[in-house]
Amino acid sequence: MFDENPEQKVKDIGEQGLLQKLHRFCPPDIIGDDAAVIKTLPEQSLIVTTDMLVDGVHFSDRTTSPEDAGWRAAAANLSDLAAMGSTPLGITVGLAINGETPVSWVEKLYQGMNDCLQIYHTPIVGGDVVRSPINTISITAFGQANPNCIIRRGNAQPGDAIVVTGIHGASKAGLELLLNPEIGKTLKDTEKNTLIKAHQRPKPRLDILPILWEILSSQSPGFDVSAQPNVPSPQSPIPIAGMDSSDGLADAILQICNFSKVGAKIERSQLPTPSAFHNWLSPQQSIEWVLYGGEDFELVLCLPSEIAESLVEKLGKDSSIIGRITKEKIVQITDNTGNYADENLSLSQGFQHF
Amino acid sequence: MFDENPEQKVKDIGEQGLLQKLHRFCPPDIIGDDAAVIKTLPEQSLIVTTDMLVDGVHFSDRTTSPEDAGWRAAAANLSDLAAMGSTPLGITVGLAINGETPVSWVEKLYQGMNDCLQIYHTPIVGGDVVRSPINTISITAFGQANPNCIIRRGNAQPGDAIVVTGIHGASKAGLELLLNPEIGKTLKDTEKNTLIKAHQRPKPRLDILPILWEILSSQSPGFDVSAQPNVPSPQSPIPIAGMDSSDGLADAILQICNFSKVGAKIERSQLPTPSAFHNWLSPQQSIEWVLYGGEDFELVLCLPSEIAESLVEKLGKDSSIIGRITKEKIVQITDNTGNYADENLSLSQGFQHF
Repeated sequence: MFDENPEQKVKDIGEQGLLQKLHRFCPPDIIGDDAAVIKTLPEQSLIVTTDMLVDGVHFSDRTTSPEDAGWRAAAANLSDLAAMGSTPLGITVGLAINGETPVSWVEKLYQGMNDCLQIYHTPIVGGDVVRSPINTISITAFGQANPNCIIRRGNAQPGDAIVVTGIHGASKAGLELLLNPEIGKTLKDTEKNTLIKAHQRPKPRLDILPILWEILSSQSPGFDVSAQPNVPSPQSPIPIAGMDSSDGLADAILQICNFSKVGAKIERSQLPTPSAFHNWLSPQQSIEWVLYGGEDFELVLCLPSEIAESLVEKLGKDSSIIGRITKEKIVQITDNTGNYADENLSLSQGFQHF
Repeated sequence: MFDENPEQKVKDIGEQGLLQKLHRFCPPDIIGDDAAVIKTLPEQSLIVTTDMLVDGVHFSDRTTSPEDAGWRAAAANLSDLAAMGSTPLGITVGLAINGETPVSWVEKLYQGMNDCLQIYHTPIVGGDVVRSPINTISITAFGQANPNCIIRRGNAQPGDAIVVTGIHGASKAGLELLLNPEIGKTLKDTEKNTLIKAHQRPKPRLDILPILWEILSSQSPGFDVSAQPNVPSPQSPIPIAGMDSSDGLADAILQICNFSKVGAKIERSQLPTPSAFHNWLSPQQSIEWVLYGGEDFELVLCLPSEIAESLVEKLGKDSSIIGRITKEKIVQITDNTGNYADENLSLSQGFQHF
């Protein structure tokens, strides 16, 4: 599909030629004006998030095919929308591209983005293509959410249960396996592939939202999801705390506690660890990747106990309650098996971009 | 204000340090979550546009201070919103930055953006800061517009008058004066400064919209601007054709004709030419800069005669009717003084990014 002319470079067809090739990834009625026009539902707030990705910093041909780079870029932005309780409306894609780049690389990048976006019915509604010495992708995603039930970092209350979706550390492990294949000698192929896939094709947890709204609507008087299946219409504000774990699970817990002016007590044995870690990594390495690995794009939600338990019951193995929000403003990791001393979480091990 | 530590570089304070310095350019209630939350009016469509600007390609310290680069980036995006008939809601700013860049450069860039945005009550609602070998700015602007009176390229009708705001070629002349100061020897200082200012501080023509809505509301039954002064509420669709002249006046006319499947007849003597051009440039050079110079960020609108005439009457010297839309699909420049032969407009002289 992309191999008609594998030698063709961006500079050979120019900006207009490249744009024409990329038009097939956009809805046909949206192209051509100075800006895109998107219908929204009344009474919803607009939710906007933006990310920049630079070749050699955020993606690299060494570990990431252009399809995977595209998928990951789209997934990261949709994950930010999910983290706000927002239904996506569309994304714009800005591309700064070196003229020596093969046209097929750009097409594969957009194919990967589109493969991810289509699952969540999210169109590419606009963009810009310019030349640059360094390939750079800028994505802005926007969605809508009911202003009364937006998920925010600052909404956690002492006593809330901390629910985490999925597992953590898998993306980091996948990246390390791609960079140093020799470290995976003792792993089964299926384990290796699962971890690598977690890195290459993370899934934004937009699927959690309708489940959460349904539980809230059954447990909270005045919360009604019947009118719009994906956009709840509560009569009164319901403060839900949360964010995604894109910068690591530890970062998410610390950010929520910081913004909510609370602390947390995390139970070490409840941390959602990939099963492949158990016979492969030391306990120290394992917990480091789980807490600080990053890019798992799961959700960390703080909810009243009954709602948290209903959610975990509904999601099954795909979620866990890892601890509680406390009044005391420290984030502590305790171990109820008695094997490890209590530790305080800090961001000093977290990911810093500079 | 920015000179506390002129030697400080981005790599000295890191991403978090830089973000903290940039927070003062954003509304305080909007920072901290995975995405920004923006209130919108019900029954409005969302309008979105995005631009990428690369150091050495779209801006350069040689001709553009960081303040001007910021202003121009903001103005270009607001101009795209104006061209759609849209009121701005906010912008996001993605910044990929080389660690060797002075922190003060980045602050000046944001100051310039903010200086432009404040005039139009438009906040910076979010962004991303990442490291890159090449300084790159990505702006996404979004606004709202009544779905029934969005300005589009494809709405021009034969017989429409073509209204152009402002003058054209001034930005190009300003750029040339910055690159080659010796060419301006015969110009007065005020003329030079006006042209350079046109390049450095272009103004998006959002000011035209309320005037246009008012004329439409007085001349079109069912068109009502009383409820929301900046957002009209027509009862029935009113097709308005137009775009901005960011890629040149010729490009705007040709794009509108192309999308509307019509042609145009342009009167050469009516082209809005800077007065400084008359004793300075050859007629050929002058018309080339007027038609193909680009980056004047004015509006080109195609309107029924009465509406066009009312608009030009209201705007005075700040606008002109340069010709008419024709059924025949060619764009012709005629000269009613008889000094020049008719010419057909073509984009071959236009700006190509590669």
